Amino acid sequence: MAEKEEVKLLGIWASPFSRRIEMALKLKGIAYDYVEESLDNKSPLLLALNPIHKKVPVLVHNGKAILESHVVLEYIDETWKHNPILPQDPYDRSKARFFAKLVDEQIFNAGFVSMTKAEQQGREDLAEQTRELITYLEKELVGKDFLGGKSVGFLDLVAGSMIPFCLERGWEGMGLQVITDDKFPEYKRWVKNLEKVESVTDCIPPKEKHIEHMNFMVGRFRSS
Amino acid sequence: MAEKEEVKLLGIWASPFSRRIEMALKLKGIAYDYVEESLDNKSPLLLALNPIHKKVPVLVHNGKAILESHVVLEYIDETWKHNPILPQDPYDRSKARFFAKLVDEQIFNAGFVSMTKAEQQGREDLAEQTRELITYLEKELVGKDFLGGKSVGFLDLVAGSMIPFCLERGWEGMGLQVITDDKFPEYKRWVKNLEKVESVTDCIPPKEKHIEHMNFMVGRFRSS
Repeated sequence: MAEKEEVKLLGIWASPFSRRIEMALKLKGIAYDYVEESLDNKSPLLLALNPIHKKVPVLVHNGKAILESHVVLEYIDETWKHNPILPQDPYDRSKARFFAKLVDEQIFNAGFVSMTKAEQQGREDLAEQTRELITYLEKELVGKDFLGGKSVGFLDLVAGSMIPFCLERGWEGMGLQVITDDKFPEYKRWVKNLEKVESVTDCIPPKEKHIEHMNFMVGRFRSS
Repeated sequence: MAEKEEVKLLGIWASPFSRRIEMALKLKGIAYDYVEESLDNKSPLLLALNPIHKKVPVLVHNGKAILESHVVLEYIDETWKHNPILPQDPYDRSKARFFAKLVDEQIFNAGFVSMTKAEQQGREDLAEQTRELITYLEKELVGKDFLGGKSVGFLDLVAGSMIPFCLERGWEGMGLQVITDDKFPEYKRWVKNLEKVESVTDCIPPKEKHIEHMNFMVGRFRSS
């Protein structure tokens, strides 16, 4: 590795998609510059680097832009090979990738839309759908400290940044308890394990401010 | 490799998500058993192997199920390392993964929904959106035989199975020409190159039957 390599992350403090990239960089001990973007006032740099989606996160490594959070995580793991975040076995890798997709597509979608429903029934139905999907992670956690096994891995970063440290805060702000202690003991244990990992906790947004932000976002997308 | 290993693919003949897996297996020269599924009558085996999504493709390798087509392609590349389909360089890999996601999310979605619009204006707007997205692939193809460079790679399998050998057939069946020769010369050259690769052409569904099927699918989702 050259000593003066450029590692820059364009992110948004409340975005789980950004936060997981910082977690990975910290787990690997990679120094980086962080540039805070604004949802409502995107920088010319962001628009130039990600003209198709105009979204964070964007990782810039020696002048090259890497886009989409799962793709960025894979890039980080392939570029700095120490402290691997993806499992070594191809089947275990396939499971991590499969569940990561489930988290960012189905769980994020059902979970976030559940908050935007003004009407009680629609909200409950989607919360139940989210709960059912999280049951699959509950099963994956049996007998493990982390989804990655003995240490934090790719799926922990994706699911951790999204569910306990984003969706749950939104629900909490609305007085809803979607993930109950009795039905999700493994999940609850996992969250406690995550909270002991400095590279993770360093990247979790401050709780009160985050809940306020989630309330604001939910208000933007409110529907019946 | 054990001699009697099990490699089985559950697929649907008209699904680009299935076809690309067969292309990859053929490029690698991996013998496999193929099980045809039906959209309207899914087998107990499919439901057991993919209880969350209940979708093809499912690759079964020595009793283990691998799900989601990009994940399956990565698994195949990691398990049988000869004739690699992903580039070796991490940045090139990130680009292939980024564009593959673009194809299966944005391009597939805009392209397919464009066909289902009964109303002319909505259809044209979405066709134009699809066209703009395909422009990004057009740029990627300049100076290359394939998206993967000198040979067919991951992104060729994803984009090839989806755009020329699926979406274009749907549009053709409706008398629409979305990807014109004058605006997409690199794309058109690429399709001709793909048509010279036996592992690809072996997995392209018969054209007339495919157009008929696409018309049927479009009818199911028809909206104004």
